[in-house]
Amino acid sequence: MFAPVYLDHNATTPLVPAALAAMLPWLETHYGNPSSRHEYGRAARRAVDEARQQVAAALDAHPTEVVFTSGGSEANNLFVKGAAACLRPGLLAVSAVEHPCVIKPAEQLARQGWRLKKVAVDGEGRIDPDDWRDALAERPALLSVMRANNETGVLQDVAALASEAKGGGAWFHSDAAQAFGKLPLSFRELNAAGVHALTVSAHKIGGPKGAAALVLDKRVEIAPLIAGGGHERGLRSGTENVPAIVGFGVAAELAAARVKDTAARLAGLRAALEAGLAALGARLFGAGAGRLPNTCYFAVLDIDGETLVGKLDRAGFAVASGAACSSANPEPSHVLAAMGVAPEIARGAVRVSLGEATTHAEVQDFLNALRSTVVGLQRMTSVSADAA
Amino acid sequence: MFAPVYLDHNATTPLVPAALAAMLPWLETHYGNPSSRHEYGRAARRAVDEARQQVAAALDAHPTEVVFTSGGSEANNLFVKGAAACLRPGLLAVSAVEHPCVIKPAEQLARQGWRLKKVAVDGEGRIDPDDWRDALAERPALLSVMRANNETGVLQDVAALASEAKGGGAWFHSDAAQAFGKLPLSFRELNAAGVHALTVSAHKIGGPKGAAALVLDKRVEIAPLIAGGGHERGLRSGTENVPAIVGFGVAAELAAARVKDTAARLAGLRAALEAGLAALGARLFGAGAGRLPNTCYFAVLDIDGETLVGKLDRAGFAVASGAACSSANPEPSHVLAAMGVAPEIARGAVRVSLGEATTHAEVQDFLNALRSTVVGLQRMTSVSADAA
Repeated sequence: MFAPVYLDHNATTPLVPAALAAMLPWLETHYGNPSSRHEYGRAARRAVDEARQQVAAALDAHPTEVVFTSGGSEANNLFVKGAAACLRPGLLAVSAVEHPCVIKPAEQLARQGWRLKKVAVDGEGRIDPDDWRDALAERPALLSVMRANNETGVLQDVAALASEAKGGGAWFHSDAAQAFGKLPLSFRELNAAGVHALTVSAHKIGGPKGAAALVLDKRVEIAPLIAGGGHERGLRSGTENVPAIVGFGVAAELAAARVKDTAARLAGLRAALEAGLAALGARLFGAGAGRLPNTCYFAVLDIDGETLVGKLDRAGFAVASGAACSSANPEPSHVLAAMGVAPEIARGAVRVSLGEATTHAEVQDFLNALRSTVVGLQRMTSVSADAA
Repeated sequence: MFAPVYLDHNATTPLVPAALAAMLPWLETHYGNPSSRHEYGRAARRAVDEARQQVAAALDAHPTEVVFTSGGSEANNLFVKGAAACLRPGLLAVSAVEHPCVIKPAEQLARQGWRLKKVAVDGEGRIDPDDWRDALAERPALLSVMRANNETGVLQDVAALASEAKGGGAWFHSDAAQAFGKLPLSFRELNAAGVHALTVSAHKIGGPKGAAALVLDKRVEIAPLIAGGGHERGLRSGTENVPAIVGFGVAAELAAARVKDTAARLAGLRAALEAGLAALGARLFGAGAGRLPNTCYFAVLDIDGETLVGKLDRAGFAVASGAACSSANPEPSHVLAAMGVAPEIARGAVRVSLGEATTHAEVQDFLNALRSTVVGLQRMTSVSADAA
């Protein structure tokens, strides 16, 4: 495999070498089951405990608030379904731009007696304050608003939204899978504002696939999705994925330590990228809102996003035409639809998401490749238009 | 860490070197998200597809019948809850000796309008045929009987049990997490007999933690536990754990290729072990039934299992006092209770589970260590009895 330039860090990130190095002993020789009461088991238990402390420290949470899961999708489903299972069916309000792993379980609940409100966003992808107030006026039991959107990178001020909701009796969850590692995150502060649960995922921050966490205020009662041996305080049974959890711990520690520097550096690279896109006449989505520093979502007029992504792939640049998790879905993005973007424009959407290793030269190379690809496609279009 | 002799393979197994070698590229350089449509993503997708074929071939199933999950507990919960979600509440019958990750979700359903029947076993741990017939007479909607028990190793003739149930309209699931790799398994044959779903897990067969599968007859409608991007035919959303799935594929292929030789060799080692245990006056559990060839579950009169396991650990032998998954639970084993074993005897239970790398010398060393530990504990007991 040749190594194209990877500009799709919101889909997944390369595993940082320190995380892999920390994982290897747990793959090679320390293979015990953390529930076993012999030396192999105790060593594995200590490793899981240490990773729990690392993840908690990186998020300014207490280790006992960290519930390890196999991934962000599981953590989001665990909150939505697990909290709902302990409540009388009522109103569940989520933003219209949530990831499918919040929207789909919410829709499952809507078929089980719950009412589901998808809170509107404005043209920049920010929660509409009036619609939020309307949702709160209906006394929701559960709320879920992501900290940062996976497609646009647009931020929601979840602390402010939670503060408004506070006292209403709802549990407030925020999917921070994309925000973690790109923005400083303090569960302590968010919790004080009224956020009760946070989803984070290892493979979005330089950790391995197969580990994530729901950080959970212990006052929230939730039922496990996966019941059994009683692991993770009874909230998530199943043998812990020790190597992945160890890698998550190391990646979380590193991500938190360098988040400010990384954010500043990536913001600079993205500014250069977006200057080049402006010169190409590209339309940027969500650029009027606060965004993750690494994410750029754009469309070039009359050019199909899928086609562009395919051409760029062949030119050696890995970017996304939509959320990777739903790339099998040919529908235009539900995020852009919620922002009022017309389908014919949304179909042009391309996402570039920069990462720790991205360089200025890569961004310039990408812009050059994009420019010639766009010119080529526009020529083809005009030729076929002439021929028609 | 010094390396004690590992005799706890039913809890987890060392990762086979070929599986680790196959995983490393997916941890190091091929880090794409299988849903991404660029070269990184396509490479990851091919790896998952290949592993799916390997797992299917090892189980004599079709690749499209393999639903990857993060572990056996998830696969069992997915079947029990997922199938129940698509049915009108009715009777769910499971054996009384199922793993907690079948029993607990079944008990959750019992609080949601389902009736739960735990089918009795005889003194050797085999399903009681009369109680099975009684269960079937009540027209169950869901059945779950494990192929082999994790504590005793006792086998259930699931093909015969499923044949009896056939035509009754129930979906029949079998947890084969312990059987896979220790006995030949054909989903095709089991399916023809009336088994509709099978759980298998990577880390029980020399594969990594973090991957498992529910092998599922496509006529069975199930709702996902984890909904979202629609991965695994919509039955299990979330970014695939590519390295773990790749390791699972390799481990499954190896396990299936050597299962007959391994089974014969381990049966020989266990016979030597059990001859030594008989000389010590130990009581064997389930030894009158067909058992997994690697598993030996015993108690020495008047000696506490936890104590014995602790002493053996310090002497350099890793064995279990009960199912690793519930070692946090100080209650005597529910499996032994179902077999009618008195609590004071069950508290003495120790499980030795042999594996691929176990040698005859290790078994002899273990017997020697056990003998001197038992003699030492008996002396202490008699001294304290004399003093009393």
